[in-house]
Amino acid sequence: MNLSPSPDRLFPADPGTRQIARRLYDQVKGAPILSPHGHVDARLLTANEPFPNPAALFITSDHYVTRLLHANGVSLDDLGLARFGVPSSVSPRSIWSKLCDNWSAFAGTPVRYWLESELSEIFGVTETPGPATANAIYDLLEAKLATDEFRPRALFERFNIRVLATTDDPADDLAAHRALRADPTFAGDVIPTFRADRYLTPGAQGWGASLDALAAASDIDCSTYAGLLAALRARRRFFLDNGATSTDTGVADAGSEPLSDSDAERIHSAGLAGTVSTADAIAYRRNLVYRSAEMSTEDGLVMQLHPGVLRNSHAATYAAYGPDTGNDLPSVGSFTRPLSPILEHFGTHPNLHLVLFTVDETVFSREIAPLAGFYPSVYAGAPWWFLDSPAGISRYRAAVTDSAGFAKTSGFIDDTRAFCSIPARHDTSRRSDAAFLSGLVATHQLDEDEAATIAVDLVSTIPANTFKLSL
Amino acid sequence: MNLSPSPDRLFPADPGTRQIARRLYDQVKGAPILSPHGHVDARLLTANEPFPNPAALFITSDHYVTRLLHANGVSLDDLGLARFGVPSSVSPRSIWSKLCDNWSAFAGTPVRYWLESELSEIFGVTETPGPATANAIYDLLEAKLATDEFRPRALFERFNIRVLATTDDPADDLAAHRALRADPTFAGDVIPTFRADRYLTPGAQGWGASLDALAAASDIDCSTYAGLLAALRARRRFFLDNGATSTDTGVADAGSEPLSDSDAERIHSAGLAGTVSTADAIAYRRNLVYRSAEMSTEDGLVMQLHPGVLRNSHAATYAAYGPDTGNDLPSVGSFTRPLSPILEHFGTHPNLHLVLFTVDETVFSREIAPLAGFYPSVYAGAPWWFLDSPAGISRYRAAVTDSAGFAKTSGFIDDTRAFCSIPARHDTSRRSDAAFLSGLVATHQLDEDEAATIAVDLVSTIPANTFKLSL
Amino acid sequence: MNLSPSPDRLFPADPGTRQIARRLYDQVKGAPILSPHGHVDARLLTANEPFPNPAALFITSDHYVTRLLHANGVSLDDLGLARFGVPSSVSPRSIWSKLCDNWSAFAGTPVRYWLESELSEIFGVTETPGPATANAIYDLLEAKLATDEFRPRALFERFNIRVLATTDDPADDLAAHRALRADPTFAGDVIPTFRADRYLTPGAQGWGASLDALAAASDIDCSTYAGLLAALRARRRFFLDNGATSTDTGVADAGSEPLSDSDAERIHSAGLAGTVSTADAIAYRRNLVYRSAEMSTEDGLVMQLHPGVLRNSHAATYAAYGPDTGNDLPSVGSFTRPLSPILEHFGTHPNLHLVLFTVDETVFSREIAPLAGFYPSVYAGAPWWFLDSPAGISRYRAAVTDSAGFAKTSGFIDDTRAFCSIPARHDTSRRSDAAFLSGLVATHQLDEDEAATIAVDLVSTIPANTFKLSL
Repeated sequence: MNLSPSPDRLFPADPGTRQIARRLYDQVKGAPILSPHGHVDARLLTANEPFPNPAALFITSDHYVTRLLHANGVSLDDLGLARFGVPSSVSPRSIWSKLCDNWSAFAGTPVRYWLESELSEIFGVTETPGPATANAIYDLLEAKLATDEFRPRALFERFNIRVLATTDDPADDLAAHRALRADPTFAGDVIPTFRADRYLTPGAQGWGASLDALAAASDIDCSTYAGLLAALRARRRFFLDNGATSTDTGVADAGSEPLSDSDAERIHSAGLAGTVSTADAIAYRRNLVYRSAEMSTEDGLVMQLHPGVLRNSHAATYAAYGPDTGNDLPSVGSFTRPLSPILEHFGTHPNLHLVLFTVDETVFSREIAPLAGFYPSVYAGAPWWFLDSPAGISRYRAAVTDSAGFAKTSGFIDDTRAFCSIPARHDTSRRSDAAFLSGLVATHQLDEDEAATIAVDLVSTIPANTFKLSL
Repeated sequence: MNLSPSPDRLFPADPGTRQIARRLYDQVKGAPILSPHGHVDARLLTANEPFPNPAALFITSDHYVTRLLHANGVSLDDLGLARFGVPSSVSPRSIWSKLCDNWSAFAGTPVRYWLESELSEIFGVTETPGPATANAIYDLLEAKLATDEFRPRALFERFNIRVLATTDDPADDLAAHRALRADPTFAGDVIPTFRADRYLTPGAQGWGASLDALAAASDIDCSTYAGLLAALRARRRFFLDNGATSTDTGVADAGSEPLSDSDAERIHSAGLAGTVSTADAIAYRRNLVYRSAEMSTEDGLVMQLHPGVLRNSHAATYAAYGPDTGNDLPSVGSFTRPLSPILEHFGTHPNLHLVLFTVDETVFSREIAPLAGFYPSVYAGAPWWFLDSPAGISRYRAAVTDSAGFAKTSGFIDDTRAFCSIPARHDTSRRSDAAFLSGLVATHQLDEDEAATIAVDLVSTIPANTFKLSL
Repeated sequence: MNLSPSPDRLFPADPGTRQIARRLYDQVKGAPILSPHGHVDARLLTANEPFPNPAALFITSDHYVTRLLHANGVSLDDLGLARFGVPSSVSPRSIWSKLCDNWSAFAGTPVRYWLESELSEIFGVTETPGPATANAIYDLLEAKLATDEFRPRALFERFNIRVLATTDDPADDLAAHRALRADPTFAGDVIPTFRADRYLTPGAQGWGASLDALAAASDIDCSTYAGLLAALRARRRFFLDNGATSTDTGVADAGSEPLSDSDAERIHSAGLAGTVSTADAIAYRRNLVYRSAEMSTEDGLVMQLHPGVLRNSHAATYAAYGPDTGNDLPSVGSFTRPLSPILEHFGTHPNLHLVLFTVDETVFSREIAPLAGFYPSVYAGAPWWFLDSPAGISRYRAAVTDSAGFAKTSGFIDDTRAFCSIPARHDTSRRSDAAFLSGLVATHQLDEDEAATIAVDLVSTIPANTFKLSL
């Protein structure tokens, strides 16, 4: 079968509405990509080495792909993941064949949709992957990856990425970001994001070592709570000075009750002594989420919050293969009550931008949109993980627009580890939003001129405003 | 841009289905309005004074509007709300300009949809609000409001309102309702609704004063629980005698566990003494919800229940500006378990009509429709606050029809404080229901004759039966 | 009005998409029925007696029908249900008239849709039921039911049922299943399903007697926990030997925490002694759910889990009329956390197929699809009770496909007690899936050839694989 994505894909089936969607999409299809939240490593661009092979590029680095192959009976060993630290000896070509053999398992999923776009539009693949075509496609991909046009920087340029935010540890020296900025041959804007998750939970594995790393990076003793706060403040400043506009926080829940300094110091000490209780560790983490909002009112860094993912839920898989292999699972979302301390104290503060993301779509209409529809500081984050599909985007717009409109949504984030999926994911969002807007136009809830303005805003001024990007 | 709402708005885009929707809507577009639940003050109609100005009519009295302006950075001060009791000196024209300046923030929301209908259809505005048109539109509105045709009674007649239920305190003397009924020049049917929320929670602010007011109105000592029950019973009778057909109750949750008389008396006393615990106060409130159902089986008043709104969630805003400024927020809904005491004891009682409303749409298919699909007493309340949009209405019908059909839904309620939004809101419901029904017809799940009958029933016999309106 | 179901019913309204849906449906409309989960009694087919009358066939045996009649004010007495064990004297014709009188109450519901299909396609009824037609339709149905063509086996054959799974008690001797298999004149495959619900909860009404029955059937003493486990194992083997491929478990929640043998023995003894606490009884039940998964890894029986139904929620109705009268209600679903013990220990075991069903559709996208999208053992069960409508099926596909694709869904189950509804329900599913797939094709997310393959798989290889049916 031919692999030839239609120019009309994701547009409504009704011919009249489809014409509207086409016109709206035409306004934005060529717009530069603003990617304010992702997981590409800045060093990929400083090194600018060729991608090693098709399996590494499309499969092993993308838990969206390994997840569904695993669900369909392919072991993670056969996908080339290192097991208990022992590197795999499975050949990239064999890994690639697993994907092709199970191509039908992806039918109807966004992963399939993105992969088809990437293979067709970036690499010029013209045949549908399958057992009969696996080798030929592999050969084609391998040959292209060896050329200069497929090195990271060339693709970055070809993808028309205007801003790319990475995700970085507070102890990171951001050398790669500085090198990119200093490099006159690289025009892109690659900015860091401050993600302090590993400092939040006293007694968690590696917490003490993390504090040591942060102390080294900040030259501030982190053996006390006060010290940790000071170090975080200092590193936020350092990130700001290096172009960061946002923090990101991924936590089990959105709890944000502050602690007194003395309670926090006590728990910090217990964490270092290895005697902290689970309840105290959680209370400490929630306090730091509160402090993160407080610091955002001071320094203006946008606060992104991604609560509710049960990380590494299958212990045996985590032990053998480590994180990010597909067994992170969504849990019930809750925002209004647990965020109350932050909202009460800072919800109307002009410096705060609080972008809320969820993996539980029931909260879109019940919590996130009503919060974004009252608090000037709150933005309804784009549908993320598990919900980042065409259908998910449609449900998100349907659920949030009534209470929050468009201006209080965040604009799209791709959140991806898979570099080549960036344009496909943004294009999916642009098409899905064009489809949603075309429905409002066709049912006379919006006139087409205004819909076109909104379509453009959604890929320019709206994310720029939400994430404080200077363009 | 022109402001000219399409006659086809909200109808499905598919041309064939749209034709069906048009025909169904034609059956009901001119039907008189039954408004069994709203927040218009009956004194508006007895006084029949001109509305003071466009800002008061469209903005400051409508928390749907102030909410989204606030979310987009307009302070409540700039919207003319009294702050700490100090009346605002902001001019109505300036307030109006805030709405026009932020018109795009409302794109895609039901508020925008209603406002466009109101401005165009009631006031003849032909230009889209915006900075350039704000003054001219204000002038036009101001001029119209000064004419007799735009006084409340004239609009009431023009809106073709057959029944309007207000929301009233049990201590209210209902003088306005009686005056309207006695007035031979006023043909409308304006009926009170018994809303006893402020008597339910011992120890809540103002509870003692409320009991005093009720005692004065009923001439029954309310210093005991038995007295309060007797007074409530007497006032329900008084409301019934003055045309009421319903009660309404807005509570934090749907809990309805009854208490023994002795426990209730003990908590009542503690409430007056200022020593009541939070848990006891909640138990007392839940008991009174149960007693409300019990009284409905005695006197036949329909019981409306609106649980789940977190009122005044932003304390600073509440302290400065009071209630109803947009910071009431939805919480997780739950009906089946908390309502169990009422359903077990009265669920099959022929006198009980229990209309359940939610701000959490996940309960439509999981709880409300299955309850309405078994208990003869239960009706699936129309989508309300946060869900009262075209999209919300569609999702409601899709979620409840499978288990409850149409006959066990409540019919539309507008629930509005904004007088001029009444016809726009009912029209939205009629159009959205026509669209939903047309989809069933187009997919051959219903024939068009039956769909037309249902469309008519939904604006006549269904609300009349649910709310026991005598037409 | 004419009763003449359209050949295009449930297909999308857009003409182009409808053409695609037609072509996809044409691939599967005549496919044999695989019914891996239902409640038809195997003795119906061994006896092969004529169905007693139209009321028994369509109304009294189907709680979907009695439920909504009851909700619309028809008493269960008037529907001929035995009250406190006293058989009803209401005539079948009178019962039938209640359905016809309330035909409009079913408009838009799947029950109405199925009944129309059954009456038209199986019985050749050409008029819409209603007061004026009730008697004539009753006469027609009665006459047909008296003919050999309408006996159970003839209908079984006409319905083209390839496999029918029944639901059976572990103590059942499966004589009817063996008789059917031994009967050379009966070609169908009727297989038992092992449902051990009544053994799970120590101290529940009838638990001791159930243990006695199981002991008698297995010849293993069940007065100890170890004995019960051994008896369950033995009976699973017996079921396997008699064609079973699955177990089924209906529980209040999906909890699956294992107990130590000594704790389980202690609770078992307390259950027999009548001294067991509620908490211990729940812990014991959850342990047995865990053991059921463990046994499935041993013997390969598919494990179906249907948690979350509040059975017999209206005590007065249950006391008078017994179970299955329409007052079972959905509760909040939860899978990821409560199933964690099973998933941690057996989630990647090659012998386990764990099919998860829900009555709370919010878990489709949040829990069931992500679980089925990682664990090889987990399948996303088809939309069941309360969600088994055309709209419910569409929402299910929209919610699960993104994370689980099609291959990790279970295929349709009809779960019905109403024998004549089997073909209508499967046809509903086939049409709804064709409609869903046609939407993916029309929006270029899937090409039509692949969609046709999926449509066929969904009624053949997918259920066969999930439920380990040998065809």
